[in-house]
Order: sequence, then structure tokens, then C-alpha cells
Amino acid sequence: MDQLESIKEFNGYLKRFTHYSKTCNSKMTFSIFLPPKAIHKKVPAIYWLSGLTCSDENARVKSGAQRFAAELGLAIIFPDTSPRGENIPDAKDRYDLGIGAGFYLNATQTPWSKYFQMYNYIVYELPSLIEEYFPILKSFKSITGHSMGGHGALICALKNPQIFRSASAFAPICNPINSQWGKNCFTEYLGNNKSDWYDYDATCLVNNGFKIDNILIDQGLSDDFYHEKQLLPENFIEVCNKMNQPLTFRFQEGYDHSYHFISTFIEDHIKFHASFLNK
Amino acid sequence: MDQLESIKEFNGYLKRFTHYSKTCNSKMTFSIFLPPKAIHKKVPAIYWLSGLTCSDENARVKSGAQRFAAELGLAIIFPDTSPRGENIPDAKDRYDLGIGAGFYLNATQTPWSKYFQMYNYIVYELPSLIEEYFPILKSFKSITGHSMGGHGALICALKNPQIFRSASAFAPICNPINSQWGKNCFTEYLGNNKSDWYDYDATCLVNNGFKIDNILIDQGLSDDFYHEKQLLPENFIEVCNKMNQPLTFRFQEGYDHSYHFISTFIEDHIKFHASFLNK
Repeated sequence: MDQLESIKEFNGYLKRFTHYSKTCNSKMTFSIFLPPKAIHKKVPAIYWLSGLTCSDENARVKSGAQRFAAELGLAIIFPDTSPRGENIPDAKDRYDLGIGAGFYLNATQTPWSKYFQMYNYIVYELPSLIEEYFPILKSFKSITGHSMGGHGALICALKNPQIFRSASAFAPICNPINSQWGKNCFTEYLGNNKSDWYDYDATCLVNNGFKIDNILIDQGLSDDFYHEKQLLPENFIEVCNKMNQPLTFRFQEGYDHSYHFISTFIEDHIKFHASFLNK
Repeated sequence: MDQLESIKEFNGYLKRFTHYSKTCNSKMTFSIFLPPKAIHKKVPAIYWLSGLTCSDENARVKSGAQRFAAELGLAIIFPDTSPRGENIPDAKDRYDLGIGAGFYLNATQTPWSKYFQMYNYIVYELPSLIEEYFPILKSFKSITGHSMGGHGALICALKNPQIFRSASAFAPICNPINSQWGKNCFTEYLGNNKSDWYDYDATCLVNNGFKIDNILIDQGLSDDFYHEKQLLPENFIEVCNKMNQPLTFRFQEGYDHSYHFISTFIEDHIKFHASFLNK
């Protein structure tokens, strides 16, 4: 593991590393914020999954999450959104496929499957690395994210309630098998057999009985992607009601899809996770 | 004035405009954050001056200032750091001269003098425009900034204590006539006569009897530009002591020159200005 940066912030440290990922067969980059409390003892961790076109850098610069993580004694891990590099397959004319668009799934189709194993990377390989090298408590993890990363947070948590104590999301892609982004990518990464898609769709997972105790979602009502039906939160709300999946879903009047929306509500999300992690 | 953006944030609005500046003979861009309180009544304003290479966008995305401005009922104005556009003179191989490097002075030398009139723009033209179009209280203004913008905040306030109630700065260029950045730019913008430079140097201004009641400065001790002697805070502290200029100067152990440093201490700065503006 190579350290690229270590920056003092809110009396803690924001660090950036590259490491070779066996899961993704390539170098991966991540950032981690260690709160001041981590100098003396192990702390719980929140995983932040970013959206399309993002890297590990967007949220650490724009979300404002570290202020509250420092106060509450939580680490935040910011993974990248896909493998990247010259040898990694990509769709250069598209922002919603390939590099920057890993969709937090395990690809099964050529040429993606050798590298795009983001689900296994986020759920298994990265936490195991993090818990080996940093003062992070093993069984105190939560997960959150934005847009494609909100989708990632929901599916990772729903499929692993024994690993993640809580999940939250900002404007998540709630039902990718019915959105244009999801259909395009799932066809490329998973093939044409739609039944293979259900495993990576939060709405399908809840419908199939997957469950997690604590979910908080914020969705702006002036979000263009919401109006373009890329996010489809109503489908998720409906299935949560049907299946008695606990859900706090807040529509936020006037807010868009940007980090300005995220920075407005990040305090609530960090405090939500802290209420389950700091027990 | 053309509105480019209006984004809801912290229950207020972040807006971006272009307008034709008579002072700078060109189109200028600025952003303004209006707190929720501004929907019902006029509010005080803080001017944020950014550093080398920045535009109006850096601080609004990275500083976290809007959270506290919203809470305390203050507007923030984010001007650009220079005129920019195809017709604007520039030094394309340099980040510290020309576009993005206006140094908040009125240039007197060709080719800069026709456009680079940033001091007059910040002190007179922009506030007058802002107070005409937005719900901003005329005589309740403060000013802050980072690096080159910290220099700008200090000189604008010291020369106009009747306009600005308080000044603060993050890692300001305190004594540009003795720093490499300052010497390069002042020679280009103001010519070789060093006595013309004193008027835009915070340390010289204090030494010459200019005074303002309230100054707060933070400086990271792991800031590379501090160690390269671009910032020279000790010269400013010394002259403030000599001239009985009130000054709260805080060296911050371990912090660098980045927005991570700024976001850590922005709460203190906004609250400092609020204590003079919300009277």
C-alpha cells in the first residue's frame, strides 16, 4: 500500500493510498479520514460510495462529512468508483459506463469481468485491508453514498445486514433495472439475462425479502435525474412499505442532485450512522 | 446582469452571475450565497477573496462557509480573482500572473492596466452592484480570503475601515513586496518604482498608520508556501505590535495551505465576522 497524501483536517487526518487489488486485478485508490479519536483508540467506520464520473476525491472535498466524523469519532472511507488506468476497459464516449461507472457490482461479461468486481472489492477486500492497517473497529461499519453510490450503499447493506449496521443514501438509483443508466450498464456488465440483474437492484432485493434495520434516504425534488426517471425512489418506497422494510425517506423541496444538496444534509446522515455505530 | 445558476443549499440559495464591469472593462463572474433569512429581510455580507489560480467557484464548493452563513443570517459574495476571457492579457506559462492572479490591486502598467483594476472592483463596483440587486445591508460588510485573497482582504479593509467592520484571512500573503510572488506581480502590474507598491502591502500599510479594529488570521505550520517565505506573517505580526494594530493571529500546528485547512477553521471566521455584523 502506498500513501499518496496525508492532510490534517478537523484535528484528524485525511489520507490517500493506492494498493494492488486482487479482486479487481489492478491498482485501486482510496481516501480515508481518521478522526482525532483514532490517535488513541479504534473507531467505527462509514463507507462513502460516490456517483458516476467521481473518484475517491469528490466527497472528501465537497461533502463536508469530515467535520461531523471528527466530532463523533468516526472514520470515513472513500473508495474509487471503478478500477482505472490504461489497461482498464472503458467506453471513452460515455460517462455512464466503464471507468468511473463501476456500479458496485461483479461484472460477468467480457471485457469487464476481469476488472470490474466492485461489489466484492467494497464488501470484502477493502474493509479487510482497512481493518488490517488502520485503527478501525471490525464489526462497526455503516455505508452511505450518492446517486450510483447510493444504489451501491443500499445493495451492499441489504445483502449484508450482518456487516453493515445502517445504510443511507443521497438521491440513490433505487431501481436500476428500470432506469436507462441501469439498463445500459447491467446489459454490458451482466449480460442480457434480466434475472441476473435483480441481485444488484435495491428495489428487487427488498421485494425478494432482503432486509436491513436502518435506512435513511434524502431525495431533492429539483433533481433533474429524478425527473428523468433515473432514480425511481417511488418504486423503492412502495416495495419497502409492502415488505415492512423500515425506511426514513425524505423528499427535500428545491434541492438538486449536486454536492450542495449533499453538504446540506450530510450532518443528519453522519449523526444517523453514529447513533448505531457509537453504541 | 445574467444569472448562470441558482442552487438551493442550507435552505438558502447559491447564485452565480456574469455582468459587464466598467472598472475592469470586461465581463466578470461572481457567486453569492443568500441565507434563508434574506428571503424576508436585508442581511449583512462577507466578501470572500480567493487565491492564485482560483475563480469564484473554489470557496463555494470547498470551504464549507455556507453552513455557518446560513445559520447566522449572513450573505457571502465570492468574486473572481481577475478578469478572464480571450481578450484579457495573460501570462500563459505562469499561474502567478495575469488571469487568476489579479492580486486585488489597480494595475498601472501596459497591458494590464486596462483590465486589472481588481481593487476598485472589489471595494466599489461590486458592492454597489450587489447592494442594488440583492437584499444586502449597505453598511454591514466584512472581508476575508485565502493566500492572495487573504492579502486582498487585509489591504481592502486596512484602506477602508469605514467600509469593512472586520477582516480575516487564511494563510495570507502578508508582505508581498518582500515575497517572490509579490515582487513578480507588482513589477508587472505597478512598475519598478517600489514606493508605488507600499499601497498594496498589508505590512507597509500598518507601518504607515492604516488601522482596522478587528483582524483574525490563521496560518498553518505545515504550509509549504509559509516555509518558502511567500507569506511572511512574522513581518505583519511585528509591525502590528509596533503600531498597536489589534490582531488575533493563530499558528495552527500541522495544517497546510489547502481548503482542508480552510474548512477546519471557517466556522471560527464566520462567527468572528458575525460578532461585528450582527449588531
